[in-house]
Amino acid sequence: MTLDPLTAYVGAFVDELSESGVEDVVISPGSRSTPLALMFTQHPKIKGLLSVDERSAAFFALGIAKVKEKPVALVCTSGTAAANYYPAIIEAAISHVPLLVLTADRPHELRDVGAPQAIDQIGLYGKYVKWFHEMALPEMDDRILQYVRSNANRAYAVSMDAKKGPVQLNFPFREPLIPNYNAPDAFTYGKKTNQGAYRSFFSGKRELSEQLITELKDKLETVEKGVIVCGPGTYNHGVEPIIDLAEKYQLPIFADPLSPLRKGEHNKDLVIEHYDALLKTDVIRDWKPELVIRFGAMPVSKAYTQYVQKHSDCEFWIIDEGEDWRDPTHSQGRMIFTDTKKFAEGLTVNAHKLGSETSWTNNWMKANEIAQYEKDKFVEIDDLFEGKIFSQIENLIPNDTALFVGNSMPIRDLDSFFGKTSKSIQFIANRGANGIDGVISSALGVASSGRKTVLVIGDLSFYHDMNGLLAAKMYELDITIVLVNNSGGGIFSFLPQAKHPEHFEQLFGTPIDISFEKATNLYDGQYHLVQSWLGFAEVFAKCIDEKGLKVIELQTNREENVHLHKQYWGNINTAIESQLGKLSDD
Amino acid sequence: MTLDPLTAYVGAFVDELSESGVEDVVISPGSRSTPLALMFTQHPKIKGLLSVDERSAAFFALGIAKVKEKPVALVCTSGTAAANYYPAIIEAAISHVPLLVLTADRPHELRDVGAPQAIDQIGLYGKYVKWFHEMALPEMDDRILQYVRSNANRAYAVSMDAKKGPVQLNFPFREPLIPNYNAPDAFTYGKKTNQGAYRSFFSGKRELSEQLITELKDKLETVEKGVIVCGPGTYNHGVEPIIDLAEKYQLPIFADPLSPLRKGEHNKDLVIEHYDALLKTDVIRDWKPELVIRFGAMPVSKAYTQYVQKHSDCEFWIIDEGEDWRDPTHSQGRMIFTDTKKFAEGLTVNAHKLGSETSWTNNWMKANEIAQYEKDKFVEIDDLFEGKIFSQIENLIPNDTALFVGNSMPIRDLDSFFGKTSKSIQFIANRGANGIDGVISSALGVASSGRKTVLVIGDLSFYHDMNGLLAAKMYELDITIVLVNNSGGGIFSFLPQAKHPEHFEQLFGTPIDISFEKATNLYDGQYHLVQSWLGFAEVFAKCIDEKGLKVIELQTNREENVHLHKQYWGNINTAIESQLGKLSDD
Repeated sequence: MTLDPLTAYVGAFVDELSESGVEDVVISPGSRSTPLALMFTQHPKIKGLLSVDERSAAFFALGIAKVKEKPVALVCTSGTAAANYYPAIIEAAISHVPLLVLTADRPHELRDVGAPQAIDQIGLYGKYVKWFHEMALPEMDDRILQYVRSNANRAYAVSMDAKKGPVQLNFPFREPLIPNYNAPDAFTYGKKTNQGAYRSFFSGKRELSEQLITELKDKLETVEKGVIVCGPGTYNHGVEPIIDLAEKYQLPIFADPLSPLRKGEHNKDLVIEHYDALLKTDVIRDWKPELVIRFGAMPVSKAYTQYVQKHSDCEFWIIDEGEDWRDPTHSQGRMIFTDTKKFAEGLTVNAHKLGSETSWTNNWMKANEIAQYEKDKFVEIDDLFEGKIFSQIENLIPNDTALFVGNSMPIRDLDSFFGKTSKSIQFIANRGANGIDGVISSALGVASSGRKTVLVIGDLSFYHDMNGLLAAKMYELDITIVLVNNSGGGIFSFLPQAKHPEHFEQLFGTPIDISFEKATNLYDGQYHLVQSWLGFAEVFAKCIDEKGLKVIELQTNREENVHLHKQYWGNINTAIESQLGKLSDD
Repeated sequence: MTLDPLTAYVGAFVDELSESGVEDVVISPGSRSTPLALMFTQHPKIKGLLSVDERSAAFFALGIAKVKEKPVALVCTSGTAAANYYPAIIEAAISHVPLLVLTADRPHELRDVGAPQAIDQIGLYGKYVKWFHEMALPEMDDRILQYVRSNANRAYAVSMDAKKGPVQLNFPFREPLIPNYNAPDAFTYGKKTNQGAYRSFFSGKRELSEQLITELKDKLETVEKGVIVCGPGTYNHGVEPIIDLAEKYQLPIFADPLSPLRKGEHNKDLVIEHYDALLKTDVIRDWKPELVIRFGAMPVSKAYTQYVQKHSDCEFWIIDEGEDWRDPTHSQGRMIFTDTKKFAEGLTVNAHKLGSETSWTNNWMKANEIAQYEKDKFVEIDDLFEGKIFSQIENLIPNDTALFVGNSMPIRDLDSFFGKTSKSIQFIANRGANGIDGVISSALGVASSGRKTVLVIGDLSFYHDMNGLLAAKMYELDITIVLVNNSGGGIFSFLPQAKHPEHFEQLFGTPIDISFEKATNLYDGQYHLVQSWLGFAEVFAKCIDEKGLKVIELQTNREENVHLHKQYWGNINTAIESQLGKLSDD
């Protein structure tokens, strides 16, 4: 029996994605997408996951892609289904996460003429995909099968090449929509070899010229007050070289929690994890650097942004592997597109300056110790202070765990209250667009990769993606969710909006007042309300060891929370002033 | 005290939207959107509603705009918040619903440089908005205030002019973000008059030339077998003229449930509400028309589409007020952009042909009676047959009620099993892109306009927009939801996919298996599981009279449902064959 064009075409595509390296597909139900859905499900090497709500589906795929650092395929039917992917696609684009968005579509004769469930899917995601391609209708002659295999390889390659990101392929399908997926040559028809991908892909790394490296080295050797800033990013291969660079030139390292520098077994003596709190103090804000070398994206710390703005006449080198222009401070200096490891090594090898502590570095290390002392003291608090959640988790979390953190308050508290750790913890957050949407699904995507996963999330963000919990139930995923319920938008209490009580609760506080116990119950999860830190420690330890969905709720108070944060920063300010105040004259 | 530019600018904008006619705004919480959120909330004539999940917010606004037939404003903060609007914006664009999408944004210096919560919002919705404008930064000189007032008027006008649809204005705001909303001239600064809108808008109606009308009349007078098709649309002003036209030329009217022809007090003798079932019969499918005059969008009926394709050599006149090109059958004939009422009146006035029943018309009316008889007989069934829900609701629903119907199966069952009625029922559905998303929110938008509202929805669609239920709880909206739980995608059981049992449940059946009682409970709703039609009638009557959110669940069986539908169509086929078979030779 000869194969039909639909099966040969879609089979070749799916097979070639697998050959390229795709391991996971998240499928949402629909009719037009039947050829892709069936062929993906039938493929022996691809794991298919089903998700009814496409918004959650796309964030779920994003979570998987984040931990696997390779693209996950998404399949949906025609119509608004595809539009529900948009928030996750934007997040993927900005945070450089590879996704292969495969949208089924009506054929051309049924487009833009009022046919049911037909929308214009050409360029649906605008500037947010790296590559859009309208696929040809299924045919099975050699040239078309070469085209479809090559395009599968290309979609994979484009999504993985710097800067990584989403691509969209739009597939027009005519009825009948059922492929002959059981045919023995369904995935191999017309395949030339069994030697892997039809077109394999190699991507060279960017290296700077010897001349420029020498120039940068010469400059660096003259710098007495330099700083390395490590923002969010997956430049794990650069950790040791960055540490060497810092040691050689005695540069303190401001390490964002989402950088690879805050955790792991490397030497962290120069890592100043309290820089956010320190840069809020009057004394340290005045410590003027000569040179700032930044890796990764902009850090979470707003105090850092203000510090940069204050010292805008200093020189900035921004190293970006992803060829992105990320600097909202528009500081002067050099934008350097190159490989992190090669850059840091290049500056370190044969450098004249040898590491020995300078007063600049010493001061930062002392300041960091003071902050650490204040932190240790502060988190002895009995109140259910939101910041303490992270110092507790720092102690309780087992090795080899992924800690996913929601936006708005949790990521800021992570920065302030989870120190540096030698545990192998993978901190993850959706920091491309910093949305409160899709967080549960993203974290479940991480969990579905088999990693032990903890999520810390606020109540609004939890509510926003409650549908995402269905994946936990359907696939019996193991996740511990710490739900910080401050009954609404806690971050607004820190902003000037809080001074307008007549509209505050309605527009910014926005308490939603639903029972998260019931919500957890709806998805067969285990629920715990904790009211003390002792209780938290017990419940957390228990949840970590158990299977399935576990939600631990802490009910906190928004006003009290602001007050305590201010008190904490005030304590550090006072301690720095009394113990390091004199150094500002150095 | 002089006013500040932010207040003067945003105040003028909001005031002018109100002068144009905007009555409702749906606001999602955020910081960057503070100027718009506060000024809208403060405005005495605009009703502000808050919605945390922007996807639901936009569908909620869509629902309000559908019943009010005027634009509703949407306000959200920067970032993926705005992307969550996308599904509803696409639905609004395709189904011609006016929306004013007001997205707050970072100022230019914070765009595309990795600033937090900043995405590229220029043209975010691509081809799906009728007008995109990047607003100027707030200033308060006369020229800029004239610009902002005029643009508010224009946004309103563009959204309301044929074809109606969404517009996006993107507002860059710099900190500080708090306007002086209590200032006495916050909304009137620089306002020239108190005479209504700064720039009021008048939109002429399209009329055809006398010559063309005469030509069409001449043609129509020769037609013996003509049909009027009334698809979905809000051309209520055209109902009487269409009825007159049908009577004058003796044309049967195929009326989609979402057309204004199926309900209301006009004469419905010529309305063939069973045309979908009839066109499925072998006999009637062969009744070849000479001319088809269609108003509104393409009907829900797939049998109608197949009928058109079968008789593609007949002549088609498609009348479209919205200047849209909606004809997936690509049938030959005339595309006529004109006002429905003027068109129908023009063809009727002084027409030579006088209404008297023809055998063509008679046959359609007889056929419709046969189908009605079969329907009446069939819905005496005791089983929880999904189709019977609508014949029950037809009897039970009180006058002046909005009946919102979900996509996939419910809209098809509405077409087949809710007849024509003299009650004033407003049938509503999201039939632009036919998505299963956002249906609860859209129906709650209808309810929030104060109308008694019933929603019939499937379980997947209910789950997809469960977050939408928060609005019912927050605003104590009154809605009766009939939840047809066939444990997954019921429509797929009608499709060829059902023949592939090894993948069917996973990819198409997709049972989500959650307790809708718990889900209802989560939002403080009343829940009823009914297991008999007697029970349904009792519970429905009770729910209609009570306040708040009420969910009535019917658990049906997918396979049984297909079987019963087929049986029903089979019955009609047999009855038509035995009673009208001979007529096919006419």
